[in-house]
Amino acid sequence: MDSDFGIARELSDLQKLRSQYQPELPPCLQGTTVRVEFGDGTTAADSSGAHTICRSFPHTYGQPLAHFIRATAKVPDAQIITDHPAIRVGVVFCGRQSPGGHNVIWGLHNALKIHNPNSSLLGFLGGSEGLFAQKTLEITDDILATYKNQGGYDLLGRTKDQIRTTEQVNAALNACRDLKLDGLVIVGGVTSNTDAAQLAETFAEAKCPTKVVGIPVTLNGDLKNQFVETNVGFDTICKVNSQLISNVCTDALSAEKVILGEEVAASKLTLFDLTKQICDAVQARAEQDKYHGVILLPEGLIESIPEVYALLQEIHGLLRQGVSVDAISTQLSPWAYALFEFLPPLIRKQLLLHPESDDSAQLSQIETEKLLAHLVEAEMNKRLKEGTYKGKKFNAICHFFGYQARGSLPSKFDCDYAYVLGHICYHILAAGLNGYMATVTNLKNPLNKWRCGAAPITAMMTVKRYGRGPGALPIGKPAVHPATVDLKGKAYELLRQNVSKFLMDDVYRNPGPLQFDGIGADAKAVTLCVEDQDYMGRIKALQEYLDKVRMIVKPGCSQDVLKAALSAMTAVTDILSTMTSPSNGGNTPY
Amino acid sequence: MDSDFGIARELSDLQKLRSQYQPELPPCLQGTTVRVEFGDGTTAADSSGAHTICRSFPHTYGQPLAHFIRATAKVPDAQIITDHPAIRVGVVFCGRQSPGGHNVIWGLHNALKIHNPNSSLLGFLGGSEGLFAQKTLEITDDILATYKNQGGYDLLGRTKDQIRTTEQVNAALNACRDLKLDGLVIVGGVTSNTDAAQLAETFAEAKCPTKVVGIPVTLNGDLKNQFVETNVGFDTICKVNSQLISNVCTDALSAEKVILGEEVAASKLTLFDLTKQICDAVQARAEQDKYHGVILLPEGLIESIPEVYALLQEIHGLLRQGVSVDAISTQLSPWAYALFEFLPPLIRKQLLLHPESDDSAQLSQIETEKLLAHLVEAEMNKRLKEGTYKGKKFNAICHFFGYQARGSLPSKFDCDYAYVLGHICYHILAAGLNGYMATVTNLKNPLNKWRCGAAPITAMMTVKRYGRGPGALPIGKPAVHPATVDLKGKAYELLRQNVSKFLMDDVYRNPGPLQFDGIGADAKAVTLCVEDQDYMGRIKALQEYLDKVRMIVKPGCSQDVLKAALSAMTAVTDILSTMTSPSNGGNTPY
Repeated sequence: MDSDFGIARELSDLQKLRSQYQPELPPCLQGTTVRVEFGDGTTAADSSGAHTICRSFPHTYGQPLAHFIRATAKVPDAQIITDHPAIRVGVVFCGRQSPGGHNVIWGLHNALKIHNPNSSLLGFLGGSEGLFAQKTLEITDDILATYKNQGGYDLLGRTKDQIRTTEQVNAALNACRDLKLDGLVIVGGVTSNTDAAQLAETFAEAKCPTKVVGIPVTLNGDLKNQFVETNVGFDTICKVNSQLISNVCTDALSAEKVILGEEVAASKLTLFDLTKQICDAVQARAEQDKYHGVILLPEGLIESIPEVYALLQEIHGLLRQGVSVDAISTQLSPWAYALFEFLPPLIRKQLLLHPESDDSAQLSQIETEKLLAHLVEAEMNKRLKEGTYKGKKFNAICHFFGYQARGSLPSKFDCDYAYVLGHICYHILAAGLNGYMATVTNLKNPLNKWRCGAAPITAMMTVKRYGRGPGALPIGKPAVHPATVDLKGKAYELLRQNVSKFLMDDVYRNPGPLQFDGIGADAKAVTLCVEDQDYMGRIKALQEYLDKVRMIVKPGCSQDVLKAALSAMTAVTDILSTMTSPSNGGNTPY
Repeated sequence: MDSDFGIARELSDLQKLRSQYQPELPPCLQGTTVRVEFGDGTTAADSSGAHTICRSFPHTYGQPLAHFIRATAKVPDAQIITDHPAIRVGVVFCGRQSPGGHNVIWGLHNALKIHNPNSSLLGFLGGSEGLFAQKTLEITDDILATYKNQGGYDLLGRTKDQIRTTEQVNAALNACRDLKLDGLVIVGGVTSNTDAAQLAETFAEAKCPTKVVGIPVTLNGDLKNQFVETNVGFDTICKVNSQLISNVCTDALSAEKVILGEEVAASKLTLFDLTKQICDAVQARAEQDKYHGVILLPEGLIESIPEVYALLQEIHGLLRQGVSVDAISTQLSPWAYALFEFLPPLIRKQLLLHPESDDSAQLSQIETEKLLAHLVEAEMNKRLKEGTYKGKKFNAICHFFGYQARGSLPSKFDCDYAYVLGHICYHILAAGLNGYMATVTNLKNPLNKWRCGAAPITAMMTVKRYGRGPGALPIGKPAVHPATVDLKGKAYELLRQNVSKFLMDDVYRNPGPLQFDGIGADAKAVTLCVEDQDYMGRIKALQEYLDKVRMIVKPGCSQDVLKAALSAMTAVTDILSTMTSPSNGGNTPY
């Protein structure tokens, strides 16, 4: 099957047109000179975990941020790299495919060849398995021709495997040594980038010269932190799913109710609370003669419902003890048994599925939407019988939008973003950095305003003291964790402001299908636009302020100036110490 | 809730852009002169049903085809209509919404106002119920502003009700009389257009001056016959669903297997044959190391499987007799009971759902895909155990694409087509025609080559002697029937030619999301392009030949010419008589 990878393919007209599209580069990446400016050494956002992270990553923790700047920018300390020896770089897709992945490879290949035509890029075939087995395909312009700006990961294929066990890490180390790689680029989500950081540390310890770079590409949209504004793929997935959801709304002439797992978990809503909430909404709309509506449920919602989560934990515990599926219900605690028996047979069967060890995939096997539809229907029928609800009979139709979006042609934004990240990747390697993730900030502005940089992956890590659910990463170990919806963030605030309008009115703008030309093509996700980002820009601005203070308050300055500076700085440090002390809960990443 | 209809709405950027799009008109509809050329009187394609249709439609059967032609065309017999008194027209959406419906109203409104600014268009609110209750909204440019080129039917709303009972027909007649309508336009699919023909006949009989016109708009894609090349909505639905299916294929790096209900019915495949076919395909692909694949099943497939159909018939018979759902299985015939018990509980429950009287909607409630996934998994496990299959464990993920497409923004083609049909509608009314459907032929060519006309709806009718399934129309009564896939047609031939390639290779061109600009925007459905259509054009061409023969063989021509003409015409009539005799099965329309 390997022979299928990288072969030229027959494309549809639109695919052909898209394959001709050439993303631009921001000013800082144009030309053949790499200029890098280093910031201060980084720390972890979660200060209470910083020690653990530092201990686990002695070689790669605390490295500075890197900013790639224009050749003409006036920054005295910038390092200018004009010597570009030919280098060999390997690239591997890790984890589930996401729109835009191919453009990372294209951008990287392009950057390599611009700086030295003798440099080469090897793609590992079949994901991490291909890395371990050293199965490679040399990337060329010809091979890229039918994969530029296209969806899927099929240029190279992928596996869902991780690079984590000693055996796997050693296999990767041997591959990089045997193939004499100067760089190894890992394209993936939170798990794969955690693995990338680990590899970087191991390579540094083993004095392997290969530098490891991570690229944030995932269909889950959850690789997002102070350095990473959004991951490649999120824009496309949003656009395709909005189209589908809007079409269902247009179909129902419909209103929306959005239920977030984070809300449910934060407010400890039970299954019965949720059912009641939905029933009340149905009833309120029926009173306005609106016998239609659309409810959006996230895939992992079931995990956020406390009693279902506890039931799942019991079941998984019993499964791990080897209790057979048929015998499980008899061994549950009395209340868990009661809940289990209360659930419809379909859901009971799904709850008994074996959890995948390190993967939340089986959550999508539990049809939360059907469970809620079943419970809401029963409750509405009860209300109808009791006369508290006087409307028409309730009837639900369930949809599952889990797979339709991730194979999509990437949006213009994702094509551009991934291509630029590919270029940055070369700059990171040229600067000799190890254990970094390529970053672009200021993404909500047009491409010529984008800021390019790199941040140590260790600075994105946190250490979880507790964890829930089969999807969670090992507790107590540093890792890049999936971003959850920030219930204090601006996007959520916007949702809250509109919640009753969304619930009661028939508000439905249909964004329509993903466009590549014209007005729709440049639309960006609301979360990207409303959230207060550009962390990297602010870090730079702060540095400039500190430098300015140092310049003004040089020895020889007046006593008054010194006094003013001292009292102001005391106040600043006092405030910041208080805000970041562990007793204050530390500073949450965002 | 009526107050929601026709209100200005907040549109997304893409919706706004689309609302600015102005479809063009083919040359024959430009200007303010209507020129109509009548063809021969029509007959029904199904000659054996012609008597029945003629008896049921004494006033509206046998009317001629109408062709609308350019003002400058040299056609001596064309009727030229230059007098355009102000008229009042009503329009109603019937049946399920389909992309493009709004543009019919826009086109009609535009044509009415161009020819006489005092003409008015009344939209009935809430479908046929609004027609019966005489709830109207006068269409204006302002009202249309946010509905131009938009999906849904929400400008006016709709019901799924029919206009069929004496009570309903009388209510419609009263509405047309009370509102003094010159024309009533019915926008809908096969059922609604059958109703339109019946209304036209009733109105003619009752000497009601309102002319009834049908417009082919349906999400089902099955209003297609010798006069109608495709219905409005089909292009959009094809494009949105192809995108979704292709994304799933890209996701699976996948091959396709298409299973058509028509094939299954024609070859009398049982559930076990189907299961075996799929298992063989899975196994053949596994032997090539391809552990992925996509199988397309049509929604109504379950009905086409003989034994399941028979089981459904037994269940529906018992339900109609009032047997309770719990008691049904005990009253089934022994073999039906055996099949019923063999099926998984989920499917058993779905089979017991009450059939909707006149509607195949509940077929979508039977999850055929899950049934087949269940059976295939069981069979693959059996083969694995027996050692006849040696590959990986089989695992299926089911998707249902039933609702995502029909609320879509209409494609450029559907916008144009619907708008042009709206204009034709005015021309039909100006020509004083009753019981016609607006038609455009030569659709596979660019818009400036489209031919515009009208055909009596009765000429599209057939009389079914037998019928199956809850979706079938009354047996023995003339009706416009849904077009099925023509197993002798060119589109099916194309599918057959590629079937093994589709099955075994990873052939997947992704058409990508629906585009409104550039190359993808003008793509047309393969079926529209490969099928041998332009029936209306050929009917005209034949007429021209007959006229030519008459011109050449005028009294006074030579004996030799007459003899040659006579023998040639004898041969032609002999052949045609033989081809159309009932013993030869008549000529099936499709």
